[in-house]
Amino acid sequence: MKARVHVTLKPGVLDPQGKAIEHSLSDLGFEGIGGVRQGKFIEIELAETDAAKAEAMVEEMCKKLLSNVVIENYSIELEWLKGV
Amino acid sequence: MKARVHVTLKPGVLDPQGKAIEHSLSDLGFEGIGGVRQGKFIEIELAETDAAKAEAMVEEMCKKLLSNVVIENYSIELEWLKGV
Repeated sequence: MKARVHVTLKPGVLDPQGKAIEHSLSDLGFEGIGGVRQGKFIEIELAETDAAKAEAMVEEMCKKLLSNVVIENYSIELEWLKGV
Repeated sequence: MKARVHVTLKPGVLDPQGKAIEHSLSDLGFEGIGGVRQGKFIEIELAETDAAKAEAMVEEMCKKLLSNVVIENYSIELEWLKGV
């Protein structure tokens, strides 16, 4: 199955990348932009077929490698692939 | 309203960040990983209240700034915020 992980900065944590995008959009003439936050999006293909085990494994990956739990939140979605 | 944009590398485009994550996960002892791809996730708060106009605006942002259309795909989701 495929796991989709979103890693985003926690609210209140300064996001310079998001601010840079916001300023660039404003410079390009886009109006009415209230705020921009940038995060990471990671897709992982897994051989595991048990959804509960897969979720537990991906959660461990998030804690150990994919996110910094002090300043970032993560969310996990699982998707079945055809024929798996 | 809020726009959520996913920017991902097109299939076939080499993803060194994804490969680095894949190797690190493997080094950490995770097994059965078929592949990892990393993309960007951008949340934009918009003052625009018309969904069609908002989508057109965000699509223009993607083409002009948020993605490199030669090597990246983008997808846009719109979400209504309470009270907007």
